[in-house]
Amino acid sequence: MSREAFVNGEYTDYVNSLVHIEDRGYQFADGVYEVFAILNSKIVDYEGHIKRLYRSLNELRIKSPIQKKSYRYHIREIIKRNVINDGLVYLQITRGVATRDFRFPKNSKSSIVIIGKNTLSNYYHNNFNKGIKVKTTKDIRWKRVDIKSLNLLPPVLAKQHAVDNGCEEAWLLDDNGYITEGSSSNAWIVKKKTVITRPVSNSILNGITRSTLIKSLTKNGYMLTERRFNLNDIKDADEAFITSATQFVMPVIAVNNIKIGNGQVGEFAKIFKEIYFKHINIS
Amino acid sequence: MSREAFVNGEYTDYVNSLVHIEDRGYQFADGVYEVFAILNSKIVDYEGHIKRLYRSLNELRIKSPIQKKSYRYHIREIIKRNVINDGLVYLQITRGVATRDFRFPKNSKSSIVIIGKNTLSNYYHNNFNKGIKVKTTKDIRWKRVDIKSLNLLPPVLAKQHAVDNGCEEAWLLDDNGYITEGSSSNAWIVKKKTVITRPVSNSILNGITRSTLIKSLTKNGYMLTERRFNLNDIKDADEAFITSATQFVMPVIAVNNIKIGNGQVGEFAKIFKEIYFKHINIS
Repeated sequence: MSREAFVNGEYTDYVNSLVHIEDRGYQFADGVYEVFAILNSKIVDYEGHIKRLYRSLNELRIKSPIQKKSYRYHIREIIKRNVINDGLVYLQITRGVATRDFRFPKNSKSSIVIIGKNTLSNYYHNNFNKGIKVKTTKDIRWKRVDIKSLNLLPPVLAKQHAVDNGCEEAWLLDDNGYITEGSSSNAWIVKKKTVITRPVSNSILNGITRSTLIKSLTKNGYMLTERRFNLNDIKDADEAFITSATQFVMPVIAVNNIKIGNGQVGEFAKIFKEIYFKHINIS
Repeated sequence: MSREAFVNGEYTDYVNSLVHIEDRGYQFADGVYEVFAILNSKIVDYEGHIKRLYRSLNELRIKSPIQKKSYRYHIREIIKRNVINDGLVYLQITRGVATRDFRFPKNSKSSIVIIGKNTLSNYYHNNFNKGIKVKTTKDIRWKRVDIKSLNLLPPVLAKQHAVDNGCEEAWLLDDNGYITEGSSSNAWIVKKKTVITRPVSNSILNGITRSTLIKSLTKNGYMLTERRFNLNDIKDADEAFITSATQFVMPVIAVNNIKIGNGQVGEFAKIFKEIYFKHINIS
């Protein structure tokens, strides 16, 4: 079976899925994206992701290339055509093709690409059991990371910095030494049975997994404080973890080679993973 | 005659010049670019642009897809095939095609795109005679704008903000209220016969036109100070202008609707334009 992508209205063979060299996504990172986790061939938290997609589009004044109700259809079609059981769907929208100019083009038609990828679950559960290591690095991103845009070179460099240091994720430090978030995840610690994560602002992405976990934590009676935390907080933490659409809840066992708690996957992470999966909306 | 582009080793019809949807330039803005002005079918300041291109590639650890000596050949070929007399050549390199992952791919082959565009000169001279208006806006870009990367969504938004306010360019204000640079140009003022522009750092792009103009100003005995300037400095300025590869020296007649000097194209701008064109290297 050959993979298929959805590109500007057509289902195309993945290998021959192409866009024009003057697509503004290619020249200006002038676009937005969403990543949907797929479990049992169904979409996790579809509504939350679509709501955020429209928020990102509105912030950048990019028109949706398809009707709102059509997103679900095309994502399901990608799931079906690529026989995705556990995996992810990546969806990207740009301002379209136009002669290169920083100004918004007057008559461009937004571009859309949807790709599916198999096998997420096994990879996830293996990593969960080991936990991941985190490296901190300066947050050098632009000041509107609340928009889920393609302006992703800084997190690419941050993630690679983590990899170069034998870690799986980077946590980004703001000018005051507080963690904003991970390069592609939200950052959390647990200290004296209280769960701590940074409040939503222009400095972090309002994670869908983050929101779902917060709701399920509250519902289950766990103490939660939305506040900034720094390296001193991390050193004293009993546990740490990240959340993202495709990493769900993922325990962090070390930050900058400093063990978190006893350096093993923590009990809270195990519980939070369970209650997260109970709380997600699958459709 | 149909336009042609150079895409990953081949000369292709512009309309059918395509890249893969998983090119990292499209998903992550993971690439760099240069814009070369073309005058009399020759390249302006080729060496300076190629030197900066290699600096940008090195900073991002992206391999050049072609030998250093081949850039000139392909740029000239684009000039020839598109019969460019006065115009520009746009050259873009990305980390190549790979399954989406923030980490650098292990075996991707860098992508390269070169496009040419005609008619620069007339457009330029018309604009020069009118001068341009500038709108200031917050500099919300990432902290490594010295790398000429594709991470260009913030300057796109800044430029459009200028357009929305009836202006041609945006000047970006840092957290302390000082101008960093324009959205796609360097910013300059002239005050008491002294030319003022911000010194090079991670906060501005080291403009090739900027460097060439600085050399020619010094050679011609003009007083120059590389220091930051703010809106108060601008209000007192006798003249203001911008420089870029395709706008050369372009007079600014108003900033935030405040007239600069008498609100006309200034004498220094005219002189600096002349000495700039005398000083450029055309090959």
